[in-house]
Amino acid sequence: MEVVTRQRVWNFSAGPATLPLPVLQQMQEELLSYGDSGESVMEMSHRSSVFLSIYQDAISRLRGLLGLSDDYEVLFLQGGGRLQNLMVPMNLLEGKDSIADYVVTGAWGKYSSEDAKNYGQVQLAWSGQEAGFRGLPEPAALRLSPQASYLHLTSNETIHGVQFPRDCYPGLENVVRIGDFSSDFLSRPLDISQFGLIYACAQKNAGIAGLTVVLIRKDILERTAGRVPGYLSYAAHAAADGMYNTVPTFAIYVTGLVCRWLSETIGGLEEMERVNRLKAHRVYEALDQFPEFYRVHANEDCRSLMNICFTTASPQLDKNFSAEAKLRGMSDLQGHRSVGGIRASLYNAMPLEGAEALREFIIEFANQHG
Amino acid sequence: MEVVTRQRVWNFSAGPATLPLPVLQQMQEELLSYGDSGESVMEMSHRSSVFLSIYQDAISRLRGLLGLSDDYEVLFLQGGGRLQNLMVPMNLLEGKDSIADYVVTGAWGKYSSEDAKNYGQVQLAWSGQEAGFRGLPEPAALRLSPQASYLHLTSNETIHGVQFPRDCYPGLENVVRIGDFSSDFLSRPLDISQFGLIYACAQKNAGIAGLTVVLIRKDILERTAGRVPGYLSYAAHAAADGMYNTVPTFAIYVTGLVCRWLSETIGGLEEMERVNRLKAHRVYEALDQFPEFYRVHANEDCRSLMNICFTTASPQLDKNFSAEAKLRGMSDLQGHRSVGGIRASLYNAMPLEGAEALREFIIEFANQHG
Repeated sequence: MEVVTRQRVWNFSAGPATLPLPVLQQMQEELLSYGDSGESVMEMSHRSSVFLSIYQDAISRLRGLLGLSDDYEVLFLQGGGRLQNLMVPMNLLEGKDSIADYVVTGAWGKYSSEDAKNYGQVQLAWSGQEAGFRGLPEPAALRLSPQASYLHLTSNETIHGVQFPRDCYPGLENVVRIGDFSSDFLSRPLDISQFGLIYACAQKNAGIAGLTVVLIRKDILERTAGRVPGYLSYAAHAAADGMYNTVPTFAIYVTGLVCRWLSETIGGLEEMERVNRLKAHRVYEALDQFPEFYRVHANEDCRSLMNICFTTASPQLDKNFSAEAKLRGMSDLQGHRSVGGIRASLYNAMPLEGAEALREFIIEFANQHG
Repeated sequence: MEVVTRQRVWNFSAGPATLPLPVLQQMQEELLSYGDSGESVMEMSHRSSVFLSIYQDAISRLRGLLGLSDDYEVLFLQGGGRLQNLMVPMNLLEGKDSIADYVVTGAWGKYSSEDAKNYGQVQLAWSGQEAGFRGLPEPAALRLSPQASYLHLTSNETIHGVQFPRDCYPGLENVVRIGDFSSDFLSRPLDISQFGLIYACAQKNAGIAGLTVVLIRKDILERTAGRVPGYLSYAAHAAADGMYNTVPTFAIYVTGLVCRWLSETIGGLEEMERVNRLKAHRVYEALDQFPEFYRVHANEDCRSLMNICFTTASPQLDKNFSAEAKLRGMSDLQGHRSVGGIRASLYNAMPLEGAEALREFIIEFANQHG
């Protein structure tokens, strides 16, 4: 078997994940001095005019991509989805008796619901756990609480490979929806008007680890004022124009570069979705050719375009698959340590060529071992 | 006046701040592929073996520099000093009736004490506010509470330029000391045994914005178990070997590079302190030559080696000083927006040559305008 020595691998990591090569190249070029500033972006005061223009540019590019109205604030926070799992109930519930509905379609939604129990009454509106987190709720199966302060859902479950269809999320019209979009943010258009607040860690489609993007509707923000102190308060961040304390400057710069790549090189989120759909289709199609050998974890109607989770005929063959793929220059194909199997993450920055390489290997591996 | 066109400026920013040039150059070199991994460090799964070795290396280099015993855990968190201001009382106080002593020697200590009031009884053991945050407490002036769960202090006040002498911190032997070391961490040796917990955001001497280093003694850690949920719990981070969720991978890599530079190029923290002392001395000495023109904010016995805060004869001349210095290739010399004046931050990565350039300009400016 030919061992690949290409300088860069096809990186199928679920996150931190592959970045667009032109974005990396630009970072590299500007690393010792951004423009004629004589400083790396990493070295700039977050209050300097040069950094503030990088910051404003990242926000306006993000707004442009999403078509975000002024009804929403953009906050660049830290701590990942796990800190948002706490900040959401701390800020949105009025006390321990307040109710929040959680729709749990995978491991991350389960974490979210458990974290929230520290701050209020969590009602499981639906859970796919008994069925092994393979599906989405039928509308009739949802148990929604009329008094819920909000309904939380996870747009894409990274570990189980289950994704809601675009703009087809559960809940009632009069309920505030909160979405964890960590692993499919910016991978397709998003009708933000369906949500009161969404959050997404950046290290899948939007940048690097250490930055968490929060979009919050201003009426929700007003409601939370004074409820929690300091860094934990969305209102405090918004009141300081997103600069409550030193923001993760370099990570914000990277997100700005990624947004520029998405709009100028890719052509926007509709086009990004078309490419993502094509990449995922090519891989699922190969897996479906060998129904006796490969098994996709998610049900067909909710297969994720981002994380393709599957198994071969045996756990040992799963391991061999990942190991042999690595020798072909395809890294990080093992499943999450909690579930095993194989996972191929096809985020925005994975080129079609990478998906095609994986497709070929899937076919070859099945022919060899199936 | 000659306008400097050197590629990189002397960056006197108070943070994010200048980084060692060899560290930037190594990042630049490895940006598209770390070693033969075929991936940028930014793109690596935080659970991959390559990243885990970067992570362990950063921790062991940090331990080596500080001579840290196994009694202390090293945690790489997010959210900066402001989140630590909340996490400390949340984790260390047993309830709203618990008492914590705060020694306030500047703006950051004041924020810390105010943030803590949300979680317990804050006793101001000493405050330098009335005197304009120019000094340190005399031991006899401290009002310590016998029942305090801990005593909090700020080792170096970035905005007011007031620093405790090395290893000469206030408090009683039987009281747990908590230190905010954000702006002098790794600038000199530290007798960690005097502290139960210290925290430091990385963007001054230890790396880039988005990483907060926490060193916590294990007996304190055990005491906090189960007191706060999820991301906000030190115990949760420690139980997960510091990988409770996705860590800010690239920022950790930078901190590892900075630690290597400190040990291999500089020769350790004793030598770093010697250089820092020399740099600060050269600048203070120039200011002291013109007592009628320049005024250093801090009292002489507690002048910071990191942040030299001073004024000229007028606010307008302060502005001119910063503006003219910028034309000479010396950036970010203005004081914090809350106090004005001039501030020169001479962190580890500022070479002696930069301090000498500032010294010359200080003398020239006084001769011209004094």
